[in-house]
Parts: sequence; C-alpha cells; structure tokens
Amino acid sequence: MPDQKTGLIVTAHPGDFVWRAGGAIALHAKKGYKVKIVCLSFGERGESQFAWKEKGATLESVKAGRKDEAQRAAELLGAEIEFFDCGDYPLKLNEAHFDRMVDIYRELNPSFVLSHALEDPYNFDHPNACHFAQETRVVAQAMGHKPGAQYKYSAPPFYMFEPHQPEQCNYKPDLILKIDDVWEQKYKAFQILAAQKHLWGYYERVALNRGIQGSRNTGIPMTYGEAYQTLFPRVTFELG
Amino acid sequence: MPDQKTGLIVTAHPGDFVWRAGGAIALHAKKGYKVKIVCLSFGERGESQFAWKEKGATLESVKAGRKDEAQRAAELLGAEIEFFDCGDYPLKLNEAHFDRMVDIYRELNPSFVLSHALEDPYNFDHPNACHFAQETRVVAQAMGHKPGAQYKYSAPPFYMFEPHQPEQCNYKPDLILKIDDVWEQKYKAFQILAAQKHLWGYYERVALNRGIQGSRNTGIPMTYGEAYQTLFPRVTFELG
Amino acid sequence: MPDQKTGLIVTAHPGDFVWRAGGAIALHAKKGYKVKIVCLSFGERGESQFAWKEKGATLESVKAGRKDEAQRAAELLGAEIEFFDCGDYPLKLNEAHFDRMVDIYRELNPSFVLSHALEDPYNFDHPNACHFAQETRVVAQAMGHKPGAQYKYSAPPFYMFEPHQPEQCNYKPDLILKIDDVWEQKYKAFQILAAQKHLWGYYERVALNRGIQGSRNTGIPMTYGEAYQTLFPRVTFELG
Amino acid sequence: MPDQKTGLIVTAHPGDFVWRAGGAIALHAKKGYKVKIVCLSFGERGESQFAWKEKGATLESVKAGRKDEAQRAAELLGAEIEFFDCGDYPLKLNEAHFDRMVDIYRELNPSFVLSHALEDPYNFDHPNACHFAQETRVVAQAMGHKPGAQYKYSAPPFYMFEPHQPEQCNYKPDLILKIDDVWEQKYKAFQILAAQKHLWGYYERVALNRGIQGSRNTGIPMTYGEAYQTLFPRVTFELG
Amino acid sequence: MPDQKTGLIVTAHPGDFVWRAGGAIALHAKKGYKVKIVCLSFGERGESQFAWKEKGATLESVKAGRKDEAQRAAELLGAEIEFFDCGDYPLKLNEAHFDRMVDIYRELNPSFVLSHALEDPYNFDHPNACHFAQETRVVAQAMGHKPGAQYKYSAPPFYMFEPHQPEQCNYKPDLILKIDDVWEQKYKAFQILAAQKHLWGYYERVALNRGIQGSRNTGIPMTYGEAYQTLFPRVTFELG
Amino acid sequence: MPDQKTGLIVTAHPGDFVWRAGGAIALHAKKGYKVKIVCLSFGERGESQFAWKEKGATLESVKAGRKDEAQRAAELLGAEIEFFDCGDYPLKLNEAHFDRMVDIYRELNPSFVLSHALEDPYNFDHPNACHFAQETRVVAQAMGHKPGAQYKYSAPPFYMFEPHQPEQCNYKPDLILKIDDVWEQKYKAFQILAAQKHLWGYYERVALNRGIQGSRNTGIPMTYGEAYQTLFPRVTFELG
Repeated sequence: MPDQKTGLIVTAHPGDFVWRAGGAIALHAKKGYKVKIVCLSFGERGESQFAWKEKGATLESVKAGRKDEAQRAAELLGAEIEFFDCGDYPLKLNEAHFDRMVDIYRELNPSFVLSHALEDPYNFDHPNACHFAQETRVVAQAMGHKPGAQYKYSAPPFYMFEPHQPEQCNYKPDLILKIDDVWEQKYKAFQILAAQKHLWGYYERVALNRGIQGSRNTGIPMTYGEAYQTLFPRVTFELG
Repeated sequence: MPDQKTGLIVTAHPGDFVWRAGGAIALHAKKGYKVKIVCLSFGERGESQFAWKEKGATLESVKAGRKDEAQRAAELLGAEIEFFDCGDYPLKLNEAHFDRMVDIYRELNPSFVLSHALEDPYNFDHPNACHFAQETRVVAQAMGHKPGAQYKYSAPPFYMFEPHQPEQCNYKPDLILKIDDVWEQKYKAFQILAAQKHLWGYYERVALNRGIQGSRNTGIPMTYGEAYQTLFPRVTFELG
Repeated sequence: MPDQKTGLIVTAHPGDFVWRAGGAIALHAKKGYKVKIVCLSFGERGESQFAWKEKGATLESVKAGRKDEAQRAAELLGAEIEFFDCGDYPLKLNEAHFDRMVDIYRELNPSFVLSHALEDPYNFDHPNACHFAQETRVVAQAMGHKPGAQYKYSAPPFYMFEPHQPEQCNYKPDLILKIDDVWEQKYKAFQILAAQKHLWGYYERVALNRGIQGSRNTGIPMTYGEAYQTLFPRVTFELG
Repeated sequence: MPDQKTGLIVTAHPGDFVWRAGGAIALHAKKGYKVKIVCLSFGERGESQFAWKEKGATLESVKAGRKDEAQRAAELLGAEIEFFDCGDYPLKLNEAHFDRMVDIYRELNPSFVLSHALEDPYNFDHPNACHFAQETRVVAQAMGHKPGAQYKYSAPPFYMFEPHQPEQCNYKPDLILKIDDVWEQKYKAFQILAAQKHLWGYYERVALNRGIQGSRNTGIPMTYGEAYQTLFPRVTFELG
Repeated sequence: MPDQKTGLIVTAHPGDFVWRAGGAIALHAKKGYKVKIVCLSFGERGESQFAWKEKGATLESVKAGRKDEAQRAAELLGAEIEFFDCGDYPLKLNEAHFDRMVDIYRELNPSFVLSHALEDPYNFDHPNACHFAQETRVVAQAMGHKPGAQYKYSAPPFYMFEPHQPEQCNYKPDLILKIDDVWEQKYKAFQILAAQKHLWGYYERVALNRGIQGSRNTGIPMTYGEAYQTLFPRVTFELG
Repeated sequence: MPDQKTGLIVTAHPGDFVWRAGGAIALHAKKGYKVKIVCLSFGERGESQFAWKEKGATLESVKAGRKDEAQRAAELLGAEIEFFDCGDYPLKLNEAHFDRMVDIYRELNPSFVLSHALEDPYNFDHPNACHFAQETRVVAQAMGHKPGAQYKYSAPPFYMFEPHQPEQCNYKPDLILKIDDVWEQKYKAFQILAAQKHLWGYYERVALNRGIQGSRNTGIPMTYGEAYQTLFPRVTFELG
C-alpha cells in the first residue's frame, strides 16, 4: 500500500497512549492510516504501583505484564507498537534509541506525530519523551545523518496530547479532535488497563468536557473530544 | 445566493486591511465568498501624516481622501466596505457603533472574522478594535440583545492579522495563509496607498518571508504568506 | 453576632456563583460565616437563551425569572444576595455601583472575596466583573473615600473561581477547596438552573476531576473539589 | 536655552515620583535637563491615610497638603511640576486631560518619559496612568491632532519605574540607573513625605539592593540604583 | 519520636540555605520539626572567591573550609546536614546521588521540601538542583524503585526560595513566611559566612522588605519575611 | 595592543554567525575590536543538505567544505574563528569543550558575547549552544576553576541574535544594531554560503525590516538592522 498515510505516537509509558491519544489512534486506524506507537518504557518502575503490590513481583514480571497490556491496547486501537524498553523514572535514552527513533521517522514518513506536553512537574519522563520526539523529528531531516540512506521524509506536524493536570503544565489546547466514532473503542482500551480503574472515569469525564468545549467553540456537534496543542504554525488555503 | 459563504474584517484604519489582510480578502472573494470590511475610522488624525502635509488640508478633506482610497482598495480586493467614522487616536466607539457591529455579525453570519492583534504598544486603536470585534462577536449570540430579531448566527473563528512589529505585540502566528494566487492584487492595493510608498517594500518583504516560513513548516510550496494568530481552539476530524 | 466571619462573592451573572463557587458558599455558610453574593446583572441578555425561547418573553419577564432562580439558589446555599441590576452584555457599571460595592466591602469586612478570572475571551462580562471587584476592594481601604465613615476594613484575600474553559483564559489554579461535605447542596443548586441542564453534568465532572487532582497533589482524601487561583501572596507561620 | 534636553515623568500620585523616580529626576536636572513632572492627582483619597487621620481634614485641606509636599519635593529634586487634579481612586481622566498631556509632549519634546508599570493589582491608578502616558505619547505624533500646531516632536523612549511589589506586577527591570551622585537629594525628598516615614527605609533598601544588582550585572561600581523596564527596543551603534 | 514532623532543604551550595531558607529552617526546628539539609556541593569552585584569595588555597582546603562553615550554620539553625560532594560549576550529579536523594525522601517523609527557583541565568547550579530535587521527589513515590523497600512516603509540597535577583529568574513569590521569632538566629548564621559580609546587609534588607510586603498583603503584623514560590496547588478546607 | 576591546560570538553552525550576527562582527572589527567566533560544529550532518547532494560526499569532505566556507566568511567579516568540531544534530559537547570555552572567555575578556536564542523548536543545537555559552560565561568567573590561572575577566553582557522564526522561539528583540556601514560586507559573506542562496534574500529582507523598525522606534535614520535580545539588565548613567 504505497500511498497509505501514516501516523506516529511517541509515549513515555503504556498508559499514556491510551488515556491521552487513544481516540486519535483508533480514528486514524479506522480511516486507513497505518498508526505506529513508540512506547519508550514499560512504566515498570513508576507507573505500575498496582503490579508491585502483587506478591512476588519482579522487574521482569512487571515489565511483562505492562507489555502485554500495551500490546493488547494497541491492537484494540488498531495500531502497531514498538517498545524501546529504555527504563523509566527516569527514562534512560541513549544514542541507539535516538538513531532508532530517527529511522522510524524516516521509515514511516508520518503525516502527524503525537507526543507529550512540553512541561509536566508531576512526571519528568513526559517532557523528556516530548523533547526526544521533537529532536529526532528534526534530525530525521538531516541528510548527514546516516548519509546514503534511502528514504522519503518531510517533518510532520507535531501535536501534544493532554497531560493529567493541564494548567499545571502550562498546557493550552488549540485543537480538539472529534472522537465520537471511536469512543467505544477508546473506552474498551481503558478497560485493558484494569489496575488503573480509577482513571477510567477521570478520562471519560475529560473526553466529555473536551467534547462540549469543541462544540461550543465551533458549533460542530460532538460528544467526545481529545485535546491537542500544536507546536508549529500550519498553512491553510481558506479560513472559512 | 442564499448559501454564499461570507467573511468579515474589522480594522481600525484603512491601511490595516490592505497591509495585513489584503491577501485573505482577495483570496476569499476569488473563491466566491462575500467579504465585508468594517473600517472603524478613516485614520484621519493619526494615520494620514502625508495628507496633513498638503497645503489647506482639513479634517474633512483628509477623511474624504482616505475614504476614497479605502473604497478603491476594497473594490480592487473584491470586498464591500462599511465605514463607522468613529474617529481615531483614539477610537471613539459608542453604543450605536456597538449595536451596528452586532447587527453586521448577524446579517453576515460570517465563516471567519479577521481583526487586529491583542496588544500593540505603538497604536492603541489596534487593540481597541480587536476588543470591539471580539466583544460584539459574543454579544451577537445573545438572544436578549434585540429580542425578536430574525437571524441565523454562529460565532465564527477569530483570526488576528499581523501587527507592524509582531514580537513587540507578543504576537505569535499559528497559521499562514498561502496568498500566491492573489499576490498581484494585494500589491496593487498597496499602490492605491500612494503616500505610504515606504510600506510597499516592507510588507512585500513580510509576505515573502512568511511564505518561506509557511513552506518550511509544512513542506507546502508557496511564495507569499499572510500570518494569523487564532483566538480559539478549532475542531478537526483528521490530523494528517 | 459581632465576631461572625464573612465571605463575599462578586459575579457577573446568576449562574456563575452556582457553577463556580457554589461549594465555597455552602461550605462557609455551614461553618457559620455570613456569606454575601453580589450579582451584578441578571444575565438577562446574554445568559438566558432558554428564557428567550419562551413565547412572549420580555426583558422584564426574563429578569424576573433569573432573579427568582438566583434567589432560590442563594438561599439553598445559605447566602444572602444583592442584585446590582447593571445590565449585561456588556455590564454597564457606573459610579453608583462602584460606591455601593465599596460600601459592601466596608460593611462586610470579609475574610475572603471570590470573583471571576482575569481573562475570558468567551465572555467579557467576566473579566469586567473581576476588575470591578478588585478595584473596589482597594478603594475600600482609602480613608478619603467617603471621609468620616465608620467602618473596620482590611482588604481580604482575592480568589478567582474557575471559568468554563480554564486554559483559554490563562487560568492556573493554585488552590483546591474540598467541598465533599456540601456537594449535595451544590448539586441541588444546579437543579434550580433547570434550563441549563446540559451544564449539570459538565460541572459535576469538573468537581470530580478537581477532587482527584486535589487528592493527588496533597494526599488528602477528597471526592469533590472547587479550583481557585490566588491573586496575592499569603503569609504563613508553618510550611508543613 | 533652545538645545536644552528635557525629561518627562507622568505619575498617578505625588509619592510615586519621589520613591520610584526621584533619582532619575535629580540626576537629569543636575546634568542640565529641564525635567517636568505631570502629577495626575494629589492622591487625596487613596494615598493620604495619614492626612485623613488629622482632625477636621477635608478633601480640600488634604489636597492642599499633598500639593504643598509635592511642590517642595519637585523643587528639591530640580524639576517643575504640573498638577492635573483629575481625582484618584480611581483616576478620572477626561478628554481635556488627554489633550493637555499631548500638548505637554509636544511642548517638551522630551528625550525620555518615565511612568508606572503595566500592571499593579494593588493600585489601579498606576496602570491607568501608564496607559494614559503611553497613549498620549503616540497621539502627540499625529499631525491630525490639532492640525496646524507648530511643534517638533519625536516619540521618546518609555521607561517604567519600579512598583512597590515588582514580582506581583510582572515587572522585570532591564535597566538600572546609577544614582549615587543624587542619593542624598533623593533621600531628602523622602523626608518631605513626613507622614510616610515607614517607606523611607523601604525605598532606601530598594535603592541599595538595586545598586548591588547593577554592580553584579555589569562590574560598574555603584551603591544606589533605580530600576527601570523599557517598553520599546533601542538602537545602538556598538555593543561593547 | 515516631510522629516528629520533618522538613527537607535541597541546596546547590552552602550559602544558599542560609541566605534563602535560614528562617524556615530555624523556625521549623524551633517548632520541633526534624530539619535536614542536603547540600549538593561545597560551592568550592564557584562560590568561594574569598577562600581562593588566601595563599596556598587548594581544592581540599577550600572544601574543608566551606564544609566547616556549613556545618556550623546548620547546627546554629537547628538542622542536620548531609553533603553530597558532587562538585560545583557545574554540579556533577550521578545515579548514586539520585538514588541517595530518593532514599532521603523516603527516610524522612518530609512535610515540606525547599529548593531553588526554576530558573537562574546567573547560576546554573541552582536550576539544576531544583530539577534534581523535583525529579527525585517524584521517583520516591515509585514502588518499582528499589522494590521491596520499607518506607512510608507521600510527596511533599515543594517551595522554591528566593534567588538573588528574583525578577531576572521569572520568580514570583506566592507565600511569605513570617520569621520574626528566628531572625536573630538567621542573622547569626549570616555571620558564620564571614567572607561574604557584603551579603549580610543585602539579605537583611530582603527580609525586611519581604516582611513589609507580607504585612501589606494580609494585615498580619510582621517585621521579617522569607519569600517562597509554590510548585503545586494546595488543598484547603476554609478560605477565610 | 593591550587595550584592544574584544567581542565573542558562540554559534552552533557556520551559517549562524553570518546570517544572524554578521553585521555585529564586521562592525566591531571595523571599530578596532578583536572579534572571535567560536563555531561549535561544522553543521556537517544537519546544516549541509546541499553538500550531501553532491556525489561522493563523505563526512570528512562535507566538514572540510563547511570549514573552508566558515573561514572565508570569518575573514571577510574581520574575525578570527575557532572550531570545536563537536559534532552536530545533536551537538556533542563534553568537558574538554567546556573547559576550552571557559579559557576563551578568560583569554579574551570580551566586552560582549553573542549567541543563539533561548528556545528554537526547529533546531535543538541552537538552544544548546546558547546554554553552553551562558554557563561557561559564569564558570569563567569562578576562581576555583583552574585555580592559580592568571587572567582578567568580568562577565560580559549577553546578547541573543535572531533565530529564523523569531515568534516561534518566543524571541523578543530589545535592541537593534545599526549595520548600514557594514551591510555590503555582510551581504558578501552571504555569498560565500553559495549553496544557501535562498537565504540571501530572506536575511536581506530581515535586515531591511529590522532597519525600518529601528528607525521607527527611535527616530535614528538607518537602513539595515540586526536584532538582539538582552539577557541581563544594563546599567546606565543617563536616560536621554
């Protein structure tokens, strides 16, 4: 399918792509995009409190559990997923991860990339992941990086999905994606993250309120929304 | 033409709609939009240095001259124009202007509205005009304003065009409109503003550099651009 | 009751004190504070779409309806309410309103004052009300204002309650009030605003998510929260 | 003295030009500048608590007292002063004040203008005065304002002096004026403001700490400094 | 003393905890808190100009001198101190320092943590220390960090003390701690830093002016204040 | 020439010092300053698309080509240049580079230093270079860095030159350098960068528009300008 459009999601931990971008993933998959998730860590140290409470938990068992969940959620949403397994709290990203990320940008030549917000005082892996996704996005343009490689690449628009406490992250959405058509899928993906049941309701409420805001801002009827903040100016041919 | 789309421009002075939004006006007129300019003053006191240098100039002669120019420029760009004649330096907007502006929003039900930036320490008429355009845009939604009136209105997206010194106005464009197809028209409108010849080159350079920026941000080939900053989040159905 | 503590709320329209500060009102009333609401307008033009849809609606009938609702809601929450009837969209505040507001600050000598956020591009009455509440709070300190008047007054802390779309208003909460004990009362006050039923769920979701955020930020268990942003530094004697 | 350079200070109340700009006034007077202070009000309502505590105080007596102080302080600093007597808390500036201010800009053609900071949540007269000084500075350029008038005018650089609590006003100084040579004069002017003795020490400490900051930022030895924030870019011919 | 409350201070160099947080340390020690200072470096390269001017100074002699001073100051203020000796200008923090810092958070389970401001263009060790204190504060919550460890930990509120030039660091205090009861102790700690005598007066002036600001903001009488900026929202049960 | 003044420029890649600071370099060289450029990388991977398009290009050939260009441009502008050859996309700055940079500050004791803006989402090497230039500027003051070294050093003012898309970098110029006298030289240096011919016009337009802005802000006649943003407050002895 040479002309298949593609989308890329770069997240620090498995839960992030579900809560924050699950609608975008499912929606574009449904539209025929090839959607790929790069999941930098399994969130094994910092985002798996529930798993560590189980008797006999080890780093490997926790990672395996989170990996399984993430794979099932990605599949349910219609995306493929690649794990960098770089470790979390903090992320330990090295040059090999950097080069692999650049390769993915070039392999995929995505029409959009989604990642975390610029700041997050509650979770330093998030801005690190955002910075990593941004910097590799630029380096992928550099012909002097792996010179001679064959690829077609144009740096895609960069959208930042919503953090848990947006105002504390100085996050200001400028775009709301209507996700009504895939809401059930997104909610089912929530349910794969069984141990974080307390977040199901939280992010359902976020989706409903973003939906109302989308409606109020534009008059477009919608029930569920996903908020994004754009990093670069876009070009348009018509304002109306 | 019941389904003709419309666009609205609200400017403090005649020059503004030419330098800052002339591309958008001509482009949408060309696409079949009905485009209307509301020009709050003639810029007769503060934006007509050249005219005052002529012997025998009076307030009326200066206003007449600026009005003539503005009408010709609007016509060349394909728009209709309505003058509020509220006085400039400062704008003296009263309740009648307010109500007329609300009526225009309702009569036109525009698909977009363009006005000045939020701040401008070089020209206080500019943020005043922006505030006026914003507030009347909201009031036009209020059923209790002229109750019983018949209209169809949905508050349009609000785009702020570029001030003369964008950084000093804390202006950050998030949208570049490709205006290649109407550039010649825009430049001809510049030439109607014969006394401000020193600005022809200035705003041609702005258009060229915004064009290059538009290209670099998106890969879309373009030569001339007009920058805009968006006030409200938009809704979209696809990110790619 | 000479030592009864008091609280003051200044809102542009009736709905605002219910959606945004209903918890604080009920909570402090319950704690024995005398709580007073100053409601600048009835929201008769801009915040009463439902009422205007009724056959035969007039400005007076709409105002009467909104006044009745506001009174019932204030009573339910345990507060007294004073209407300035200054008109809305826009607020038409004059010197008499200004002086009355100053008198209220002095009569009440409140321990806190709550009002709108500093900015709101969706509703210009909101920042106007905030500015009015701020400026009169300061003028109430001036001995030269109504010299010879007898009063005891110390300018209270100023808290701004949450607007409908906080990020678009550059609103950043720094305080979450736990309102579990009065949540039912607040929700009942929602139900008095029968025509805005679509907001019941919206603001219930806001309260639940602010509650979770409050919990996560402090470890204090709570279900329902109301967010506030502080205008001035506070003084403390202990940080732990 | 046709080539005498001039400086202009626009303050809301008498104390402001002493505490915040007394050094700049005395310094430029000493250098041979003609320095003029425009004092918009006497601070009679809001900045004269001490005077109102005196038995039998009336608005007129308070104004007379503040005027006398202000005149003596201006004289001591080497400046002339013009009172607009527009009233305070709030300032009641009208079109006549506006036109007089424009005339003063044109009469004086100052090399610099000093006024308040852009924001001040403790005192709304301050940002109002700043806005008034800014807007008239621009209008003075407009040939259509009082056409036919003879004057020579070029809009001067605009410096904002330090508010009482700079961080709360989002004030960020970019310039420190060395005032060692006139410090004694400035401190003597403090002493004219006998009733505000508690501020003598406060502003002496501000001057000393700004002096140390000036030194640390540049290596230039200095003891007393006055901080300013610049509104517009400057032009230079050498960076070293 | 199982229920003894604790406080934690994380500073880049020895002087910082004295000038910036000496009041908070002494005050909480006096209230019965166990207060612990983590001092990341001795400031041996960049904060010891005086010591290097002594004949025969070596890195070891300078470090020993600063350590002695820091220990005496900590003792005088009533706190214990732990040195990380990570080197300064720049700080060279490694994984072992990171893990030790996490352990300290868990051992202490502090009621508050104090550290540097988010930005400081005069001293890059300061924001680095702040980031380190923030990130380890979060990681200490992660059960997957040293799984199986026994501890009780809840992430404490994070307060940032005042940098040398607050406005240049975009620092905006929202909290002033009244330190009158321990001012003499704080000033005695200044005197241990004998070589920086020029800062005694500077920080005494800061304390006096912050005290006056605290008073003016709240009406609470106080003479000496220490300013703090809060990183996260707090929860409260009463606003009055 | 013991009293020769000096200036320092720190750039990530060769083109930067030409497009962004070429005027300042040539101007100060002409005034007799010794001007030194530190060029951290050759831009060999990310800023040499043209060179990689040539058949047989290797990393070494590309670096050699860029080095040759940079040397000729520096010479034409009148500056000496030192290459750190640290690699680009990303910069790989290590402790040896850090120490060498500190040595250069001390050897040169510059009257000013120019470097990149604080942010640049299009090019992460730029903010990295800025941070590096800032931090080493501070460390050069530390007597404990290479104790015993003989040098005379006072931290110079720090000016940030203009990025490619200033608003997207939150860049706000506060200083415009008049470069009319050296414009031809700057433009000739553009021409050495033969492969980036598309930028010749772009940066000529920037210079012309900054020139007009400089003129409008000050009344000083000028044609070509270079914009700078200042990092620290300056001290002055006269405002006029």
